[in-house]
Amino acid sequence: MVFSSKLIEKAVDAFASLPGIGRKTALRLVLHLLKQDKTATEQFTSALSAMREGIHACQICHNLSDTDTCHVCSDPRRDRSLVCIVENVRDLMAIEDTNQYRGLYHVLGGIISPIEGIGPGDLNMETLMQRVQQGEIKEVIMAISPTIEGETTIYYLSKKLQVSGIRCSTIARGVSFGGDLEYADELTLGRSIVTRIPYSGGGSGIEK
Amino acid sequence: MVFSSKLIEKAVDAFASLPGIGRKTALRLVLHLLKQDKTATEQFTSALSAMREGIHACQICHNLSDTDTCHVCSDPRRDRSLVCIVENVRDLMAIEDTNQYRGLYHVLGGIISPIEGIGPGDLNMETLMQRVQQGEIKEVIMAISPTIEGETTIYYLSKKLQVSGIRCSTIARGVSFGGDLEYADELTLGRSIVTRIPYSGGGSGIEK
Repeated sequence: MVFSSKLIEKAVDAFASLPGIGRKTALRLVLHLLKQDKTATEQFTSALSAMREGIHACQICHNLSDTDTCHVCSDPRRDRSLVCIVENVRDLMAIEDTNQYRGLYHVLGGIISPIEGIGPGDLNMETLMQRVQQGEIKEVIMAISPTIEGETTIYYLSKKLQVSGIRCSTIARGVSFGGDLEYADELTLGRSIVTRIPYSGGGSGIEK
Repeated sequence: MVFSSKLIEKAVDAFASLPGIGRKTALRLVLHLLKQDKTATEQFTSALSAMREGIHACQICHNLSDTDTCHVCSDPRRDRSLVCIVENVRDLMAIEDTNQYRGLYHVLGGIISPIEGIGPGDLNMETLMQRVQQGEIKEVIMAISPTIEGETTIYYLSKKLQVSGIRCSTIARGVSFGGDLEYADELTLGRSIVTRIPYSGGGSGIEK
């Protein structure tokens, strides 16, 4: 692509550096901003700058927050005996969106991945153990994706937490609601038979 | 989607205000910026601000430019007797990318569209007529999309330019290279037979 302007080229490069945005899409976004008032671009850039400057990691659970302690950790109605360990903030948001969980969180900031050179020392493990040692936590739910790296992380966490004697659980694996048995992979389907659950009579068990 | 932070919510809203970006993609982009250094966000926002502040419309052809006169209009090797009229800067870039055109341009900034309330007065027609009256231009190529609005604009332009007596042409319509006759629409295929061109013996006629 030939650009008539160095400024446009730089702006296109900036957009194209974001994941999932190619140079054609980047150009479309830049031309969109140019069509709008200057204030639109100002609002856009200032929202991003304010976000990047003002954001904190919650000092308890490492969730992203405007304040030192995030809105989950500072909510008195939350169950402080229950902690859900998640890989990242996006997973935390996904669980919050279900409205099914009333405990606290702990964001690891990644999972153990020898290939990418990420060991337990690179994750927020130390603060998790400190929280556990304070004695308030009764159960830890490991809501980590069931990939090879995820399972490794779950195994490592369970071994670390065994010492403290608190209950460890993982989220249920199985055929998804609305999913077709025929298209479920063998491992999931096989495990869902082995780990079958007593039928409690109708409904998905989700509180609406 | 529930956000743990007002700052993140505002940044997501900012990204989601761009065309083709939904809130899920916006969140992914925001979290990507948060993973990077602060300098990455600074570079991103300053590239956009600099672009929005520093960009000019070329005073001759209304192309986007860093300077008062764009790189096409200020290039002495360009054929000043030939002007290609385009709807917008993106079309200009597409033609420049072909490396087949050595004349100048004129960016209309839109096409006549009664439905959207865009009349000839809203487009860069006045400056085009001024350029024509200067007498240097011998031919005008109307490279405008063959939609109903496009054809209306072409008709209007041809009537306006008729008075000045300069040659008017449109870009060729027909079956595209690599296109399958079977799948060409009836209008295009029918017109491509009526406006058939003498066979000049091999090749696409494009200078490589």
